[in-house]
Amino acid sequence: MGSPNMSKRLVEQGIKKIEWVWSHLRILQQIEGEFLDSKPFDGIKIGICLHVEPKTAGLLRVLQAGGAEIAITGSPGTTQDDVAHALKRTGVHVYGCKSDGRTEHLKNIQSVAQHDPHLFLDNGADLFASTLEKTFSTHLVGGTEETTSGANRLRSELLGKINVPVIVVNDSPLKRSVENEHGVGQTVVEGFMRVTNLIIPAKRFVVLGYGACGRGVARYLKKFGGRVTVVDIDPIRALEAAMDGMNVSTLEKVLKWGEVFITVTGHPDVIQKEHMKRMSDGVVLCNAGHFSSEIDINGLREMSVKSQELDRFIEEFTLGNGNTIVLLAKGEMVNLATGKGNPAETMDLGLALQAYSLKRVREDHETLPKGPQPVPDDINKIIARQMLETFSFGTS
Amino acid sequence: MGSPNMSKRLVEQGIKKIEWVWSHLRILQQIEGEFLDSKPFDGIKIGICLHVEPKTAGLLRVLQAGGAEIAITGSPGTTQDDVAHALKRTGVHVYGCKSDGRTEHLKNIQSVAQHDPHLFLDNGADLFASTLEKTFSTHLVGGTEETTSGANRLRSELLGKINVPVIVVNDSPLKRSVENEHGVGQTVVEGFMRVTNLIIPAKRFVVLGYGACGRGVARYLKKFGGRVTVVDIDPIRALEAAMDGMNVSTLEKVLKWGEVFITVTGHPDVIQKEHMKRMSDGVVLCNAGHFSSEIDINGLREMSVKSQELDRFIEEFTLGNGNTIVLLAKGEMVNLATGKGNPAETMDLGLALQAYSLKRVREDHETLPKGPQPVPDDINKIIARQMLETFSFGTS
Amino acid sequence: MGSPNMSKRLVEQGIKKIEWVWSHLRILQQIEGEFLDSKPFDGIKIGICLHVEPKTAGLLRVLQAGGAEIAITGSPGTTQDDVAHALKRTGVHVYGCKSDGRTEHLKNIQSVAQHDPHLFLDNGADLFASTLEKTFSTHLVGGTEETTSGANRLRSELLGKINVPVIVVNDSPLKRSVENEHGVGQTVVEGFMRVTNLIIPAKRFVVLGYGACGRGVARYLKKFGGRVTVVDIDPIRALEAAMDGMNVSTLEKVLKWGEVFITVTGHPDVIQKEHMKRMSDGVVLCNAGHFSSEIDINGLREMSVKSQELDRFIEEFTLGNGNTIVLLAKGEMVNLATGKGNPAETMDLGLALQAYSLKRVREDHETLPKGPQPVPDDINKIIARQMLETFSFGTS
Amino acid sequence: MGSPNMSKRLVEQGIKKIEWVWSHLRILQQIEGEFLDSKPFDGIKIGICLHVEPKTAGLLRVLQAGGAEIAITGSPGTTQDDVAHALKRTGVHVYGCKSDGRTEHLKNIQSVAQHDPHLFLDNGADLFASTLEKTFSTHLVGGTEETTSGANRLRSELLGKINVPVIVVNDSPLKRSVENEHGVGQTVVEGFMRVTNLIIPAKRFVVLGYGACGRGVARYLKKFGGRVTVVDIDPIRALEAAMDGMNVSTLEKVLKWGEVFITVTGHPDVIQKEHMKRMSDGVVLCNAGHFSSEIDINGLREMSVKSQELDRFIEEFTLGNGNTIVLLAKGEMVNLATGKGNPAETMDLGLALQAYSLKRVREDHETLPKGPQPVPDDINKIIARQMLETFSFGTS
Repeated sequence: MGSPNMSKRLVEQGIKKIEWVWSHLRILQQIEGEFLDSKPFDGIKIGICLHVEPKTAGLLRVLQAGGAEIAITGSPGTTQDDVAHALKRTGVHVYGCKSDGRTEHLKNIQSVAQHDPHLFLDNGADLFASTLEKTFSTHLVGGTEETTSGANRLRSELLGKINVPVIVVNDSPLKRSVENEHGVGQTVVEGFMRVTNLIIPAKRFVVLGYGACGRGVARYLKKFGGRVTVVDIDPIRALEAAMDGMNVSTLEKVLKWGEVFITVTGHPDVIQKEHMKRMSDGVVLCNAGHFSSEIDINGLREMSVKSQELDRFIEEFTLGNGNTIVLLAKGEMVNLATGKGNPAETMDLGLALQAYSLKRVREDHETLPKGPQPVPDDINKIIARQMLETFSFGTS
Repeated sequence: MGSPNMSKRLVEQGIKKIEWVWSHLRILQQIEGEFLDSKPFDGIKIGICLHVEPKTAGLLRVLQAGGAEIAITGSPGTTQDDVAHALKRTGVHVYGCKSDGRTEHLKNIQSVAQHDPHLFLDNGADLFASTLEKTFSTHLVGGTEETTSGANRLRSELLGKINVPVIVVNDSPLKRSVENEHGVGQTVVEGFMRVTNLIIPAKRFVVLGYGACGRGVARYLKKFGGRVTVVDIDPIRALEAAMDGMNVSTLEKVLKWGEVFITVTGHPDVIQKEHMKRMSDGVVLCNAGHFSSEIDINGLREMSVKSQELDRFIEEFTLGNGNTIVLLAKGEMVNLATGKGNPAETMDLGLALQAYSLKRVREDHETLPKGPQPVPDDINKIIARQMLETFSFGTS
Repeated sequence: MGSPNMSKRLVEQGIKKIEWVWSHLRILQQIEGEFLDSKPFDGIKIGICLHVEPKTAGLLRVLQAGGAEIAITGSPGTTQDDVAHALKRTGVHVYGCKSDGRTEHLKNIQSVAQHDPHLFLDNGADLFASTLEKTFSTHLVGGTEETTSGANRLRSELLGKINVPVIVVNDSPLKRSVENEHGVGQTVVEGFMRVTNLIIPAKRFVVLGYGACGRGVARYLKKFGGRVTVVDIDPIRALEAAMDGMNVSTLEKVLKWGEVFITVTGHPDVIQKEHMKRMSDGVVLCNAGHFSSEIDINGLREMSVKSQELDRFIEEFTLGNGNTIVLLAKGEMVNLATGKGNPAETMDLGLALQAYSLKRVREDHETLPKGPQPVPDDINKIIARQMLETFSFGTS
Repeated sequence: MGSPNMSKRLVEQGIKKIEWVWSHLRILQQIEGEFLDSKPFDGIKIGICLHVEPKTAGLLRVLQAGGAEIAITGSPGTTQDDVAHALKRTGVHVYGCKSDGRTEHLKNIQSVAQHDPHLFLDNGADLFASTLEKTFSTHLVGGTEETTSGANRLRSELLGKINVPVIVVNDSPLKRSVENEHGVGQTVVEGFMRVTNLIIPAKRFVVLGYGACGRGVARYLKKFGGRVTVVDIDPIRALEAAMDGMNVSTLEKVLKWGEVFITVTGHPDVIQKEHMKRMSDGVVLCNAGHFSSEIDINGLREMSVKSQELDRFIEEFTLGNGNTIVLLAKGEMVNLATGKGNPAETMDLGLALQAYSLKRVREDHETLPKGPQPVPDDINKIIARQMLETFSFGTS
């Protein structure tokens, strides 16, 4: 990672980026003050797997204020090297860099686990899974899991094997409203506009999935004047979409109609080869779900006679029939893969839930049930109240 | 009820009102066809307590198509005499008339119960409660309850005493979205406009409560350009309101600010005398919750030095300090008390849930659990799908 | 009009209705204070043709505060007798009553003109037209005209014949935004809901005309979740509708699609017999334009084999092919004919423009150009500022 | 601009970017077909000053299809070198590159003028101004001007000196709705989100100016849940904002309240040093008006004790009192300076207006009035109709 000068430049750059974001993490700022007083993590080691980027840096600052010693690694491809360098200066043990692949990632997970932490903050259950293989983590009393997919893993392949309480932060109703509906909904519209430079009003969008994220995407497209058709196999959600003023249909019926298809279902292969063959020439495909598998991209590549990158994040495929299909951001989440991700304030909420949940596990690990569990209701209420306070409502 | 001529006129008037509404009860129309074929209520008597008005008439028609014999009474003050007369012509046993009070109501309940029905469709649990006192209802195998307050009664004072399955229709997620958020939300805005002839844009509204109904009221006021402050003691709901772009505050802080206060909390005495004393001169109070007790109306009357009806549903109270307070519709639900209530299509949904739930109880009363229970999920899905079909979505 | 008792009751009822509305005419309240000081109409007689209802009463109060002597008549069918009685008690010369037809109206116009007023406030140019026939009005120095249709008359059949300045209030950009887009837009949605008791979300509306009123109607229907298609022959307006997220089409293409058609074009016979024959069974027709001639109602009556009033303001016609067509409020403006008309605060604006324009004509009639002319820009700005002040914006 | 390889790479990259955008310039595509037939510019040279970027390339393609020979230069700093290289391959005479400053720009203007064009497509009136100094342009019969500021120049310093018709495209009501209100409104929201990564809901925005652009910015921020206060010195516009549900205030009153200030007034020095001193710590300043002078940036620099770039387009200034002020994109238009500018389809409209206006001047230059003039109404209507056609509305 180069010369001392380059390293110094990276540290400075990282510090500044962190500073900008930190100034908008107002719930965490308040918790920092509280933790500086109460030192809930005095003598405690926390092992973390979470994207090494400026917002995460805010959480680490708060945990350190609480007395914690921290070891962290990111996920493959998401580590921001300048932020990693800046974090090292603050005494955090950081493993991994941007160019890491899956192999390096697993090695980094081991490196974090070898610190023998008392608490894990996990992302996809990789840290918890690692404890099954090795025996070093004798101090572990519990932790948290950021994602629903990690929670699913704890409830299936790891079921009964993790004998400590794990609070699943993504299940919080707060997070579902603030981050999924509003945060994701708005940044998907923003990402689509930024990448394509196309108009929203009068354009024909098909949004697949009307869960919290899909509802957000569809509603904000509609507020910007888009013509939106919602497809959801659950008739209760579909009816909700209709009452919100959306067109409601099946994918089959709108294959020709749609100009842009956005997948937000949480399921793989929602848009398949047979669908793509029958779409209109020039159609745009875009994913806003967590995994890039909602569109059958491999199938698209196979059946294309030509592909080219027209502009950044814009790849055009030509089918045998001469029609073109445009894929955005290689099917990765269009808001995250092409920009800065969810707004700082929505991450502030999720990270504050993490901070309080870790504190709760540290204090009550003996009485909490074992295994994955939702964020305790009193924590949801406290954080909701704190976020409301950051908005400074007066009498109007 | 007067001369044969008047009676004939009432019948005709009732028939026409029913005809208009029936033409928009499309889910029930479809179920009518189905029930004509399958005759699910052949030889079955159904005792009903439900408002005797045109939409209810639609449900009765469908139940009769299914083979049922019907006895019905309404609630105090809501029976429409023309509809009652028209229904009698179709062979329904109708008890009670518009002028009935609580005493007559209880007598009517007895009259319905004396038909010894196999099924009850109840409203406030009055029919089920009547079975405790008398022994005639030997055929009863179960039924449905329309309201949440009836369900609460079944779960408290009647707990363990009703030994048959009772499906509670109001708990359906469909009904909560279609009827509460959208139906109530829109008709409250409509009712406020109709009664007061006041503008929405730029007016300062305080909406108390951000459940499904309150959310609907606040959102639709905001869409019409109102400046809306939401008050909810639950910080999770309050945060949701803030994310929806509402101002969020406490009642204390907005007493002077608000020009119109709308209660939708489900709790009594939310607006108290002490609040009213500190409100601005000319403030308007309006209730959209089920019970008229959300505003302390008795307290308001007591402390007023003068009151007068300025226009229909507009009563002005003058306090000792010279300020006036305007109360709409005597604190009754402003949408129902002053107009035709929820839109026909939203009632269509709720009545269709009733029809299918009654059929389910009739078929499965032996295997269903005893006591109050939610609408089975498959029924919610079927009705959602049928309502979607009535919207006739094409490809856009 | 009966006994002294009945008359007394009417006066009291009228006074109360006026009191309620007056409390919301805040611009006029302020002008009243100003006129009480400056007495701009001292010794001046004003002849008025304007609906005799509570909002007009507010304007009269203000003009009287300014020293004016007033003679007024309403329009055929719109006089509220209780308000007329109450006004007489305040010294206003009121002519006509609710049951008046066109013949009585013209007589009433003569009665007002015979007061020989210095100023006219006219509605449809009836007062100005009357001056051509008689010679009594020797004091007349000018006046105002409320409507665009009156202005059109002044610019065509009366062109060159009215040798005094006439300020046309309806041309004000303020009135077009506040009253037409927002006032009419919102009350048409309200009126439709009130009369039909039908749902807005997912219903298929065709709005004909996208001027200020039509834009308001279409936008507010859409905000309530309606599926809205706009038809306008002007492609610039049609494009604006598309950018607002509306569907845009021709009447021909949506004859079958539409469930509700609302005319707001300002042109006669927009919906013709040939259109009606090809509409779907049960279609609802509704007018929101000034004149009831936008729908060919005579044609509809002629070709119907049956018609009946299903409920108040709901008339159902049956065509030869068995289809039914429902006409609301006999094709009169659905917001005015079935309710209280535009919100008090939007009328406050228009009446305040009247008060200031009359004052301007009285002061500057010698220098103002002759004939119809727009509201002077400084008056628009003053009234806009005053209306803003009634909204009491704080720092948020 | 380097080696042949690099040049080849640039050409290829430029061609692809142009291809992507061209596929969404549907009005221009249609005009291309028309011009290929009718050859309206056969033997005609057109001199152009317009940003050398992919959308402009689409217009050039259409003009070439019409038979024109083209010379073009961009504006300082906006030329995209890859697009310039790609254009040269198509026979266009391109002058200038991205690194050009004001001096080079004036030289490039001369180079274009020396082609002695028959028509000018001007941007800021630079080409027209150049004709005053030199005598070479003997063929010039007229042209078009893209901007309002160019039109202002033609009406002031160049008044009476340009003896040919000049159609001012920015004055078109179409452009004002499609490009200003919707295009600018939406991309400013997008740009703010992209650069800052901050949330919109519940944030306190002050939008200065409620013309077409400001209205768009304020409305779309509000639709995303922002708390928006509008400041406009024109009370008629301010009242319109209030009716749209905005808070309305003066800059003085909201200096402390605002978290983000966005200038869209068209006037210099709207936010001055004295304002900035009294704003809250951490306030964000952002410009969406055409010129970067709406915020007194020089003043801000002078009175700051420190400044640093925290992230791309995010500069933080520290005042003497310790407060920080964040300036986005150095006060340049936040949508253009940080992204791809207005959506392709909105530019399609403006460029199509250019194509038709140039054709009109070429055909009717002898009969059109001299000097700046609006786009002829029939052209507005034709282009509106064509844009509507690109939206492919069906029956819904």
